[in-house]
Amino acid sequence: MRPQSIIAAKRDGKILNREQIDSFIEGVTDGSWADYQISALIMAMFLNELNSDEQAHITQAMLHSGEVLDFSSIEKPKSDKHSTGGVGDKTSLIIAPLVAACDVAVPMVSGRGLGHTGGTLDKLESIPGYNVNLSTDEFKRIVSECGYAMSGQTADIAPADKKIYALRDATATVPTIPLIVASIMSKKLAEGLDSLVLDVKTGNGAFMESLEDATRLAKAMVETGESCGVKTKALITDMSQPLGAYVGNALEVYECVKILRNDPLEHSEPLVQLSLELAARMLEMSGRAETVVEAMGILKSKIEDGSALDKFRLNTEMQGGDAAVCDTPEKLIDESLLVREVLAENDGFVESIDTKGVGFAICDIGGGRVKAEDDVDPAVGYASLASIGTEIREGDPIGVLYCRNESQFEAAGEALLSSYKIGNSTLKMEALIKDVVG
Amino acid sequence: MRPQSIIAAKRDGKILNREQIDSFIEGVTDGSWADYQISALIMAMFLNELNSDEQAHITQAMLHSGEVLDFSSIEKPKSDKHSTGGVGDKTSLIIAPLVAACDVAVPMVSGRGLGHTGGTLDKLESIPGYNVNLSTDEFKRIVSECGYAMSGQTADIAPADKKIYALRDATATVPTIPLIVASIMSKKLAEGLDSLVLDVKTGNGAFMESLEDATRLAKAMVETGESCGVKTKALITDMSQPLGAYVGNALEVYECVKILRNDPLEHSEPLVQLSLELAARMLEMSGRAETVVEAMGILKSKIEDGSALDKFRLNTEMQGGDAAVCDTPEKLIDESLLVREVLAENDGFVESIDTKGVGFAICDIGGGRVKAEDDVDPAVGYASLASIGTEIREGDPIGVLYCRNESQFEAAGEALLSSYKIGNSTLKMEALIKDVVG
Repeated sequence: MRPQSIIAAKRDGKILNREQIDSFIEGVTDGSWADYQISALIMAMFLNELNSDEQAHITQAMLHSGEVLDFSSIEKPKSDKHSTGGVGDKTSLIIAPLVAACDVAVPMVSGRGLGHTGGTLDKLESIPGYNVNLSTDEFKRIVSECGYAMSGQTADIAPADKKIYALRDATATVPTIPLIVASIMSKKLAEGLDSLVLDVKTGNGAFMESLEDATRLAKAMVETGESCGVKTKALITDMSQPLGAYVGNALEVYECVKILRNDPLEHSEPLVQLSLELAARMLEMSGRAETVVEAMGILKSKIEDGSALDKFRLNTEMQGGDAAVCDTPEKLIDESLLVREVLAENDGFVESIDTKGVGFAICDIGGGRVKAEDDVDPAVGYASLASIGTEIREGDPIGVLYCRNESQFEAAGEALLSSYKIGNSTLKMEALIKDVVG
Repeated sequence: MRPQSIIAAKRDGKILNREQIDSFIEGVTDGSWADYQISALIMAMFLNELNSDEQAHITQAMLHSGEVLDFSSIEKPKSDKHSTGGVGDKTSLIIAPLVAACDVAVPMVSGRGLGHTGGTLDKLESIPGYNVNLSTDEFKRIVSECGYAMSGQTADIAPADKKIYALRDATATVPTIPLIVASIMSKKLAEGLDSLVLDVKTGNGAFMESLEDATRLAKAMVETGESCGVKTKALITDMSQPLGAYVGNALEVYECVKILRNDPLEHSEPLVQLSLELAARMLEMSGRAETVVEAMGILKSKIEDGSALDKFRLNTEMQGGDAAVCDTPEKLIDESLLVREVLAENDGFVESIDTKGVGFAICDIGGGRVKAEDDVDPAVGYASLASIGTEIREGDPIGVLYCRNESQFEAAGEALLSSYKIGNSTLKMEALIKDVVG
């Protein structure tokens, strides 16, 4: 099948059949399609869209472009969570050990941070020695022995996605639901899951800012997951302010260890709630609980009895990390940092927080990446003290910056202050969980 | 300016300004845009189209991506003709010497044949020794001394067009009027013309089969030419049957020499008429005649008095060709060919001719190219005897094949026969010239 005939069909608004989509993805994988042909078709898909059949076919073709993990030797149900990304979003570090403690296997393939959002791999690497570059064999062994493992995407998983994603980034074709779905789901389904819960963020810190777009994305992902034989549910959750107490890689791990130690920080409540809600769906779909309420009870008990922390400790050891952070989480905070409050300049209520602005402020002092090849400073970050609706007076701290020097404090402090809108209205808080799809 | 921001603007249906278009074409020319970025923007342009301002800007940017010929040392008006291509379309070989004989300079940059259509360069190369690969200096000198020159596109002319055209061919983005216009007009305007006449073909042997599409293309080209300060007119002409007596490179040159010798073949009348109509517009726009009628009279006199043939002879000598073909045009016909009639299998009238089918039949026996890198057999071809409306009886010849052997005759003969629809209706002939634009 000639690339041109497939490109022409989508150009003219036709529905591509399975054979045409397979031919495209094979061509991407084996290099017989040139980059410029791939990008022409991607633009045609962007503008003429894909229907739900095409959506399922392209996801399956991308999934099967590489290795699909085989966990048939593990008798437990396999479940995972995926988030579309946000600021301070660190639920993976809580959910994986917590769900593993409930006798569900969690083979979690994660990504790195880019732009204003963080990435699970970067957070984990702030634990001294922790290795996220596992071979497929190591990954399987740790899932089998510990109950969960955390790793980056290997070259063997969905190679067509890797190629297509790089081209989309360079050709202004990232923000389109069918290709976002195919990219996420092809990687997640390669984990050989029985069930998957999706955390689709909405609000000014999310890629899909509007609730409408987030809902469309959630529905498309659930439909695609189910059509591939994986039980799938999505929560649509608020990202109009940073999630939990901290933003910044090591600080976020610190926050999670405190939660797993059943000793949560003052501002961690939304993070705990969201982690439990997501984990509860995993237990429910895995048959470990009849209802979400029952699942929540089980999950809380696994924190209280220390078994979630035990899983975290075992995983950290097996992945080469320093498990002493489980006993002394303060070890994660670099003592040489300049720690200084960011002070409000007027009285009022926090009306809104430019969440992307907060993410970029931390990114700009080294806490994240502007380009994929940038290095990250795991220590720097920010403790958010004033959430939306908080009453504040001039001179009160809105948060605390953890930075390297005065000039970083000046730059990031100013960026953070201008991210907070302080005014006279007392707004209704946004619900943390806005909808459940599936 | 980042390529992504320009791609995103056209993706979202915005109008690109001159700065954005210049940045794109500069990036194509200097290699700073990757091929996959070019093709993504091209697909977005295909689907979201270009308005007339964008059309003019991209043409000018492509034109100025390379050398623009400077004929200021030649005092005569400079004029050229361009055809969108067809089967048996050989007017360039008649028009160039004829108009040059009327004291108008004709700097004619031409192309090669591809698919069912022929190309002027291939036809000229069937004259032994004729060189179409002229340097810019040689080209200018021959235009100056002879009045016309015929050459292929040098690397220096509109390099951005060359790159973009190759990508369009590979990405199913050829058939879109704005990019067709930019491609044709950027090359033609690089010839440093005062005026240009366009022959826009319509019918089943043309790229733009419908009259509506051909008219849109003609209007866009005329508008673009005028906006670049070049007087431009377009004739919309019939391509529902091969033009003139012959199809095939050497045979077509033979037909043209016969016309220039004022000794036209029996079936050459439409070719003569169209050549005169096009050439008349060139004379009129060049100020050599007040009206088309006056111009036609002048042109006919230049054939009758032999001065057009003299120009052809001088040009052939200056471009290294064997000018003996001017005295003995039969030299152009290879005596070793198998020459055999294709016989009708039923009685009736020629209701239609699948003109593309005729073109491909000759292409397939070596008379044209399937791929750009194919070699061409200049000798093979076809004499069309039965035009639309001709009454025919079973066993009468519909044409004569000039081929290499029996198996070529079998294949091409069958393809040709099936291209002719012979039935009972006597159809109204299509007008040769359907409209004049500009």
